[in-house]
Amino acid sequence: MSTIQDVARHAGVSISTVSNVLNGRADRMRRQTLDRVEAAIRELAFTPNRAARQLKTGRTSMLGLLVPSIANPMYGFIAREIETSAQERHGHRVLLGNTYRNREKETGFFDDLLAQGVRGVIVISSLVDEQHFESAVGRGLVMVSYDRRATPDAGSGIDHVSVDNFEAARLAASHLIGHGHRRIAFATASGETTSRSEKIRGFLEAAQRAGLGDGACVIDRRTVSEYGDSEMADVGRALAGDIARAPHRPTGIVAVNDMLAFGLMAGFRDAGLVVPRDVSVIGIDGLFLASLVTPPLTTVRLPVAQMAATMVERVISRLADPQLVAGEFLFQPELVERASVAPAPAGPTGGGRGTARRRSIGKAARDRKAGKTRT
Amino acid sequence: MSTIQDVARHAGVSISTVSNVLNGRADRMRRQTLDRVEAAIRELAFTPNRAARQLKTGRTSMLGLLVPSIANPMYGFIAREIETSAQERHGHRVLLGNTYRNREKETGFFDDLLAQGVRGVIVISSLVDEQHFESAVGRGLVMVSYDRRATPDAGSGIDHVSVDNFEAARLAASHLIGHGHRRIAFATASGETTSRSEKIRGFLEAAQRAGLGDGACVIDRRTVSEYGDSEMADVGRALAGDIARAPHRPTGIVAVNDMLAFGLMAGFRDAGLVVPRDVSVIGIDGLFLASLVTPPLTTVRLPVAQMAATMVERVISRLADPQLVAGEFLFQPELVERASVAPAPAGPTGGGRGTARRRSIGKAARDRKAGKTRT
Repeated sequence: MSTIQDVARHAGVSISTVSNVLNGRADRMRRQTLDRVEAAIRELAFTPNRAARQLKTGRTSMLGLLVPSIANPMYGFIAREIETSAQERHGHRVLLGNTYRNREKETGFFDDLLAQGVRGVIVISSLVDEQHFESAVGRGLVMVSYDRRATPDAGSGIDHVSVDNFEAARLAASHLIGHGHRRIAFATASGETTSRSEKIRGFLEAAQRAGLGDGACVIDRRTVSEYGDSEMADVGRALAGDIARAPHRPTGIVAVNDMLAFGLMAGFRDAGLVVPRDVSVIGIDGLFLASLVTPPLTTVRLPVAQMAATMVERVISRLADPQLVAGEFLFQPELVERASVAPAPAGPTGGGRGTARRRSIGKAARDRKAGKTRT
Repeated sequence: MSTIQDVARHAGVSISTVSNVLNGRADRMRRQTLDRVEAAIRELAFTPNRAARQLKTGRTSMLGLLVPSIANPMYGFIAREIETSAQERHGHRVLLGNTYRNREKETGFFDDLLAQGVRGVIVISSLVDEQHFESAVGRGLVMVSYDRRATPDAGSGIDHVSVDNFEAARLAASHLIGHGHRRIAFATASGETTSRSEKIRGFLEAAQRAGLGDGACVIDRRTVSEYGDSEMADVGRALAGDIARAPHRPTGIVAVNDMLAFGLMAGFRDAGLVVPRDVSVIGIDGLFLASLVTPPLTTVRLPVAQMAATMVERVISRLADPQLVAGEFLFQPELVERASVAPAPAGPTGGGRGTARRRSIGKAARDRKAGKTRT
């Protein structure tokens, strides 16, 4: 492989002249000199050693991407969009880390990025506490955070790119209510993430506007871990069992995401319930898998490609111009109707009122609204 | 951030002494000197700049990972296992590239790895022609290739880690035959990959041993691209339509992978056929999603975690010891029985013989065995 020294010798110029060409500092150079250097680079098929260039410029052409788990189809989808946009539009490669929403793993990933000289990072985490993100920004990282809103007036150095999670769940709940459902539930994994809290608020807002009162509830289950592949579906499957056993069960369920909805549908099948005849299910995300399951899942779709392109653009722009102020970018979701939502069933299950079980579910919903925590 | 100069000054030693400690060349150093340097590193919270260290040692703590598309849940699953193993067991980060089984993109990724000083790479590609891989190895990459067998006697510099694809499809076909199916099909995307060819051979071997004759066929469809997420399911869905319309259709289908099986099941649903009452479906891969779909998919599971750990170990070991000879590592799959396979239906569809359509399918199977290409 030829070296910068070879190029300099071949072109009859100094090494620093070649270096200036490689680093885009040729504006004061004589045209002839520039032509000679460029010809030498071509003739020797010289590939600049980026590690060496990085030492000079302090930059690499890499971005970090932190995800809870790339095995989760939603994160795989987003990661592909991010990597494709970074590579095809901006010539950047992506350094990947699975961090399982674990603070220590996330911090370790930032350490490694800094040690590698990588300064741009896109984080998908949604942990409530962003302290370790701010600290990494303080150490020089340019960061874009996905799926959580900016803390108001925090003057954060972090860009926030997110779907309107409140609106996504509000849309989903309204769709069930529009089909005559008066007892609806929001099904989620327990554990605080800002996106989940936003969705719960949107769900309860729709229920309140429709005057459902005790008819709306939030049900959750702990996950063993936050690996984020089968665990979310496992939670849905277990919740479906809980719901099926309840004497006056909800007739329509909003799942916190499509993976949990797939689990719910499998759990209802296990319990002998037919979706949507006995119970309607609606997801949030818009995975292509949602069109394949039986019945095809009605869902609220996120504009993943646009969000990914925005995240990459923001991190590249702010690496190039440190004066750019971090901002918030909120995207709107849209309803995709398929076959997992039907009109609310008539009869005792659909119309009954006033049992201990229902009241206890309703109480949980009120506790939620009052800011109390359920575990 | 403190520098190597600060550490040297603090410890009262030369910069090259600190460098020797950082690069593990302290064996001839006096114990006292080593202690002083280590104390200085601790006291100044010094993080070695890996870009600088890389220039000295020619090594980084990064591996490349090339996948057709990380949005495909199977590749997401493998990538998570690879990244976790690389990071937790070996302290290596993973540089990711989606290359859509495109030779130019794959070559571009190798160029970028070399330019970044990354020398270890795991490739998931399965393109028949490995020429550009060998060429990248010639330029200094240490490579492990997934999901294809080594070319016999090629003396390749590439490790090959793979499941026994022949056995996987043989197992799947035998399972259908064991349930009384005498007209079976292997459903796949067209396009030559070595893993697909191996599976077709295993499928036809089982059919031949059972004396199915014209009862076994291979059916395929072109994909628009090899992006590898929804496209594979789309192929399955389209093939299900073809199969449903055939007058004497097969009663049992082996899908080349689980994603294509999900598409088949959706396509049969669209066509009004009930799986497994009207037609049995079996997948290959063992995605966790297979347990969620309706009915739960019987599949042949690959030992993904073990294969991923082996790939990472091989690339790390050969980076450390260039004398290690590349090898082939073949893993055995196992059948996971669920509910998508039932005994072959009785009656005209299940037992009919001798129609033009069936013969034409059978002919395709014979062409395959004879090495002819269908498109």
